[in-house]
Amino acid sequence: MALEKHGKAIDLSHHLSDLSRARGTSPLKGLIKYVTKPGTISLAGGMPHPSYFPYADISANALASDNFALEPTRPDSSVSWFWKLFGAGSSKEKIMPITIPKCPSQADDINLAVSLQYVYKPAYSDWTTLVQTGNTDGWSRALQTLCNPGELILTEEWTYPSALANSQPFNIFPVPIAMDSEGMRSDDLRKVLSEWDETARGGKRPHVMYTVPVGQNPSGATMGLERKKEIYDICVEFDIIIVEDDPYYFLQEGQYKPKSERSSQSAHKDPGDFIANLVPSYLKVDYQGRVIRLDTFSKTIAPGSRLGFFTCNPRFAERLERHGETTTQAPCGFGQSLITQLLKSWGYEGYTRWLHGLAVQYTGRRDYIIDCFAEEFHLRSSIGTTGIWNGLEVYDLYAKPKRNASGLEKFDFGPKLISFVPPTSGMFIWLKINFRTHPSFKEGDEEPLETQLFIKLAEGGVLVAPGWFFAATDNVLDSGEGHVRISFSNVDFDALKKAVGIFGTVLRDFFKE
Amino acid sequence: MALEKHGKAIDLSHHLSDLSRARGTSPLKGLIKYVTKPGTISLAGGMPHPSYFPYADISANALASDNFALEPTRPDSSVSWFWKLFGAGSSKEKIMPITIPKCPSQADDINLAVSLQYVYKPAYSDWTTLVQTGNTDGWSRALQTLCNPGELILTEEWTYPSALANSQPFNIFPVPIAMDSEGMRSDDLRKVLSEWDETARGGKRPHVMYTVPVGQNPSGATMGLERKKEIYDICVEFDIIIVEDDPYYFLQEGQYKPKSERSSQSAHKDPGDFIANLVPSYLKVDYQGRVIRLDTFSKTIAPGSRLGFFTCNPRFAERLERHGETTTQAPCGFGQSLITQLLKSWGYEGYTRWLHGLAVQYTGRRDYIIDCFAEEFHLRSSIGTTGIWNGLEVYDLYAKPKRNASGLEKFDFGPKLISFVPPTSGMFIWLKINFRTHPSFKEGDEEPLETQLFIKLAEGGVLVAPGWFFAATDNVLDSGEGHVRISFSNVDFDALKKAVGIFGTVLRDFFKE
Repeated sequence: MALEKHGKAIDLSHHLSDLSRARGTSPLKGLIKYVTKPGTISLAGGMPHPSYFPYADISANALASDNFALEPTRPDSSVSWFWKLFGAGSSKEKIMPITIPKCPSQADDINLAVSLQYVYKPAYSDWTTLVQTGNTDGWSRALQTLCNPGELILTEEWTYPSALANSQPFNIFPVPIAMDSEGMRSDDLRKVLSEWDETARGGKRPHVMYTVPVGQNPSGATMGLERKKEIYDICVEFDIIIVEDDPYYFLQEGQYKPKSERSSQSAHKDPGDFIANLVPSYLKVDYQGRVIRLDTFSKTIAPGSRLGFFTCNPRFAERLERHGETTTQAPCGFGQSLITQLLKSWGYEGYTRWLHGLAVQYTGRRDYIIDCFAEEFHLRSSIGTTGIWNGLEVYDLYAKPKRNASGLEKFDFGPKLISFVPPTSGMFIWLKINFRTHPSFKEGDEEPLETQLFIKLAEGGVLVAPGWFFAATDNVLDSGEGHVRISFSNVDFDALKKAVGIFGTVLRDFFKE
Repeated sequence: MALEKHGKAIDLSHHLSDLSRARGTSPLKGLIKYVTKPGTISLAGGMPHPSYFPYADISANALASDNFALEPTRPDSSVSWFWKLFGAGSSKEKIMPITIPKCPSQADDINLAVSLQYVYKPAYSDWTTLVQTGNTDGWSRALQTLCNPGELILTEEWTYPSALANSQPFNIFPVPIAMDSEGMRSDDLRKVLSEWDETARGGKRPHVMYTVPVGQNPSGATMGLERKKEIYDICVEFDIIIVEDDPYYFLQEGQYKPKSERSSQSAHKDPGDFIANLVPSYLKVDYQGRVIRLDTFSKTIAPGSRLGFFTCNPRFAERLERHGETTTQAPCGFGQSLITQLLKSWGYEGYTRWLHGLAVQYTGRRDYIIDCFAEEFHLRSSIGTTGIWNGLEVYDLYAKPKRNASGLEKFDFGPKLISFVPPTSGMFIWLKINFRTHPSFKEGDEEPLETQLFIKLAEGGVLVAPGWFFAATDNVLDSGEGHVRISFSNVDFDALKKAVGIFGTVLRDFFKE
């Protein structure tokens, strides 16, 4: 693919929905020159005087950007344990006080756009950024900006449920594209688009794709640059807009290695290397302006931030902004100022150091939970031959541990219950449950063993996310292959270990029935 | 009207829109008992561990609830001047530090619902509250919950532009109801509904009303209890849902009195009296659950709060919540915690004291700007005979001041340029400009003198909100009677005075042309 870098975005305004066009333009836009005239006294707005805001200043004890060492936290001496026992301000935390005065002494907003140039500069010149209130809002606005009711959209065959929940009311439904270890498959995408049959499909060929390319939800798959180029080229050919929802982008963890092969040395010590080693965003190959990228602070600062931003071409940004003006307005000012002040205090280097520290922490958590599974079950690896893991190193969990209680090696591992590919990014492990070995399983059975297992696990004290919840359509469900999505992001290490133990007990019991 | 108080809401679910019905129910709702089971380890979500949030705590120097005296700030010794000169923490401000730790030591959320019982308890029993991200979001969600595309809605003939801007994309347009000093007129509402002609009106009779009953935007009108009862009864008769957008509710200022008649004594010294003397909300008369009330902290805490709440029946609340889950999710956690902690620190008494102080401040600002107009122009009062001010004491501004530069009384006041009714609530004065006395005015003229005046004012250094911006439909526009909306909420007293001076100079010059 020849990248025509740094030309302007091409005209893609034919993708705008009727709803988006009908938003009109801001009626005061023509008068904007008066609004911005220096020295003008404005009696036009309906804003209170700032002296009536009941805060003189807001402060926070922020954490230093190097709060987390670049070694994974050891489960037996974890920061999170200290944190839990002694609360904030424990001796393990590096504190950096920040304050946001009511009257800023100077306007020196951090320029996200400039900072981002280091991270994922688009391959065209006139891109822009726009704040939103988190990626669910971002996708909801992108959807209404691009799609008319009754249209179909392209998604991974397993995807983020809320992305479907906010398109469904508009009678907009997904066309699932098959996945492999890198997420969406380019060959299946081409097949679906080139063989499109309006009558059989019940609608026009989609012109919008929703995709989570890094640490995909729920599969954990991460897409490399080559696959992104392939998919982008297909999207150019079939005139498709890509909405890239990338909340887990900075949680890239690298390959899982068994405990015995793991070096205590961290792979990337230098923050510059950390950024340089991240798989590039779709923006990197976007020379036409057909990518709307959604970034959020939900996974790197806190979900309650409700703050994120679009990166896209200016024509789409103008529509997205107008949508925001008439619904959420700007994101919360408290959140914006606390995050802006934090980023200013950290600086670009500090921010990337923080992200690097987080990625190392998540790597440690990912490794720990897989280690726990390897202890609880007998774990063997094999090369996948079908479906989403074809050709990949797949980890299989057999019912019985390799050693019995007296420590003696065993050779009867029982049936293969679970398969998974260790994720290289994100927060999730996507476990495939082999219900075909279940005593009461019948091919084509309507009885949802997956739901039964979910309930048994919950009754045993472990809550997982049931696989059906993530199915783009019912067609991707297979009663012989259930799924559960397990998150290793949130609970403490001791609870992770305990949960895997319960998981083993419940699963072995379930398969005995 | 016989109020059947404290019965349950009646079934109004036939008002739900197709879009709202299509949102379905939360797919995990049936499994909620497992989610809430004590002791369960959750691997289900995708939330980071709180130790990964880069804040140990958040603090603020909040203002004490009695920061503002219950006397209006004097323009010549204003807190806002001190604030401007010395910034936050000036000796005039009463500071109350608050802190939000990362790990709360106990769960003791302030119960808004309980506090609100004192303020505006609905006349049925099973009402509920739900947070939203400000009233523009609230109305946008209520609209999509209640209306199908192509429907018509009832509004005041002049109304909040963003309320129309977010219904227009759905092909939902307003049916304007005539107004008087209390806002929407009940007689015109009955006339419009009882004489409804689908063909002539281009659609079915509306089943949703959007109204701003206190300090109405832009007219400043405030509706008393009797009028609300009349309108509510009509809404029962014609099965209409009332969406009550009430951002200015606590800024009730009472009647304007000319400077000479004004007592230095504040009317209400006791916070209990302050609340008791507020005009009641529509909720007070809502015995069926057909009111969706929108409250916001935008005007009483800060617009950047992006935090407000619905009060409505549980059936509507469930749909509004589902809409939120798939778009904005919860309001920003930083904002929620800073406002919650403030309200907890103030307590209910403190909060009402703060609101009382604010209302007194706005009363002082309202009085001051009208005093300025009375000095800049010659002001006479008359009784309105037509239109929205029929029967009311109307203030008329004549071109020339009552005294000339040498202080001598004059009797030629020139033409009557402006009429207005001093608002009793809110932030706005709605000035009617008498373009019929303009030299170049012709009846039915398409030439927009209002826009010309807007530009002259802006060029002179004063920005106002042009009247056409608030017209529910073009039919309410009259080239002989223009409007401008003036806000007295935001600029300092000296700027208010200066702006009125510029206003006088520009207006006299404009009418000389």
